[in-house]
Amino acid sequence: MRALQLDAGGLRFVSDHAPPQPTVDESLIRVVRAGLCETDLQLVRGYMGFQGVLGHEFVGVAETGPFAGQRVVGEINCSCHRCETCLADAPNHCLHRTVLGILGRDGAFADYVRLPDRNLHRVPDSVSDDEAVFVEPLAAAFRILEQVEVAGKRVLVLGDGRLGQLCAQVLRRETTRLTLVGKHASKLKLARDCGVEMQLRNDMPDGRDADVIVDCTGSPSGITDAFRWLKPRGTLVLKTTVAGTPSLSLAPIVIDEFHVIGSRCGPFAPAIRALERKEIAVRPMIQARYPLDQAAEGFALVEKQPVLKVLFDIA
Amino acid sequence: MRALQLDAGGLRFVSDHAPPQPTVDESLIRVVRAGLCETDLQLVRGYMGFQGVLGHEFVGVAETGPFAGQRVVGEINCSCHRCETCLADAPNHCLHRTVLGILGRDGAFADYVRLPDRNLHRVPDSVSDDEAVFVEPLAAAFRILEQVEVAGKRVLVLGDGRLGQLCAQVLRRETTRLTLVGKHASKLKLARDCGVEMQLRNDMPDGRDADVIVDCTGSPSGITDAFRWLKPRGTLVLKTTVAGTPSLSLAPIVIDEFHVIGSRCGPFAPAIRALERKEIAVRPMIQARYPLDQAAEGFALVEKQPVLKVLFDIA
Repeated sequence: MRALQLDAGGLRFVSDHAPPQPTVDESLIRVVRAGLCETDLQLVRGYMGFQGVLGHEFVGVAETGPFAGQRVVGEINCSCHRCETCLADAPNHCLHRTVLGILGRDGAFADYVRLPDRNLHRVPDSVSDDEAVFVEPLAAAFRILEQVEVAGKRVLVLGDGRLGQLCAQVLRRETTRLTLVGKHASKLKLARDCGVEMQLRNDMPDGRDADVIVDCTGSPSGITDAFRWLKPRGTLVLKTTVAGTPSLSLAPIVIDEFHVIGSRCGPFAPAIRALERKEIAVRPMIQARYPLDQAAEGFALVEKQPVLKVLFDIA
Repeated sequence: MRALQLDAGGLRFVSDHAPPQPTVDESLIRVVRAGLCETDLQLVRGYMGFQGVLGHEFVGVAETGPFAGQRVVGEINCSCHRCETCLADAPNHCLHRTVLGILGRDGAFADYVRLPDRNLHRVPDSVSDDEAVFVEPLAAAFRILEQVEVAGKRVLVLGDGRLGQLCAQVLRRETTRLTLVGKHASKLKLARDCGVEMQLRNDMPDGRDADVIVDCTGSPSGITDAFRWLKPRGTLVLKTTVAGTPSLSLAPIVIDEFHVIGSRCGPFAPAIRALERKEIAVRPMIQARYPLDQAAEGFALVEKQPVLKVLFDIA
């Protein structure tokens, strides 16, 4: 089969990759469309030391298993469901897990992918392939609602990229006092078109009035900005990892008794439901698409200019 | 009056400092005894840019005000009690506050100090002067119980200094599964004598079994250690600030969805009650004492060797 592979030499398109062999509890899925994520870019730079087929945002058609013949999306953490962590209701943190296209498991930038049956969710007919590709990152945005009470609060989302846009759209359903803060007028305009209040970072007024700040910048500057705008005892949700070991003062966390909460993968069901009800606009974010054999060009494009979302048409 | 002052030239003992002039809502207190805190050492190194009389851990006798003639200890944050933050029940975070011997207000390494009446707490007769000096840092340890549920949980306290010892003694009342982790066998022995289970850092087994970790190390290594020992979704309480801008990977916060909570000043009432009931052993920590005019030697001693607590005898 065809696949976009990451190995010691970098990204490589191959046309003769062995197809995945599902275990007894897994389904084989024919991939239809996939999305390029910031994490994929970081993996190419060496994050996690991953080698294998990239890709963890996808929609496809199950060829085997309980969903055979149906369109599906898939949760990316493949856990043992037997260890203490799994039994403590945190299977996404299973220390024995593999993660689709990220850790110990080939991903979805390929003609076929395998995933545990229990990871799959059927896609309703009213959700298009383009929209379904966004279920995984949208679920990550919904994760915040499981962790932090935001109803009616003053909320800032930092970072006008893909994840910031999704988080802003999800959170503003809970509060009218939300602002997306970014550095790119064109990206912020897209948020405004989706009804999100937005502000250029350099135009942010001084003052500390935020109850909750969600950092989606992927940069240490997001954290130092947050410390300037957050109320004492406010909550900072870290949605994006910052590569390397940045130098930053953590004293404000103690002095102002901030809560800093890491936030990663989230629940698929509310994400699918929100897309089904057309409550979240994802299609305006799609700014380029490539066939799988030209996927490397999509990586190059995103590195070169601010693009919100690149899709790969696979089947 | 006599006072230990910090100015651009460093620490300086003066015998002719003007006595403090209390406002209408403040009491004048004759200082009896005071304690040297890690924060004092950091202030000397330039933290907060403070200049003035140092000292925020003390016991004294009120000369004026509602407690006149009685022994008192005092909360260090002097807040406006009118702003939004104060009215939101967080006066310790008042943006207009002064802080005794730390920010905009002369401290207690002096013959006299002034504090708002509402900051004072009477010291019961059964609590000695030596013990009463520990009320302020002990209250900071009790703050953790207001922020984090620790009952029955696996808890590590990192750092065998003054604050680590107090936190360990406070928290082990709530859980039998607590270990104090430090680098100094002599300090750890003191904790063991107080009934606290202890472990040398280099003898810590691998594995992530801690639900809650309290960092009292004052060093970035405390945070990286915590990330190695904390369960996914575990809570890290930062009790001590780390000077400067250390280089640190924050990715584990996101990947493992840790909660990081800053923790500062705490409630005096339970601290006084615990000392009254002899539930916390503080006297074994006192390892040196100096008269006020030799207080600078106390600073030098603590910089030179691991000493748990230095007191200054003032009256």
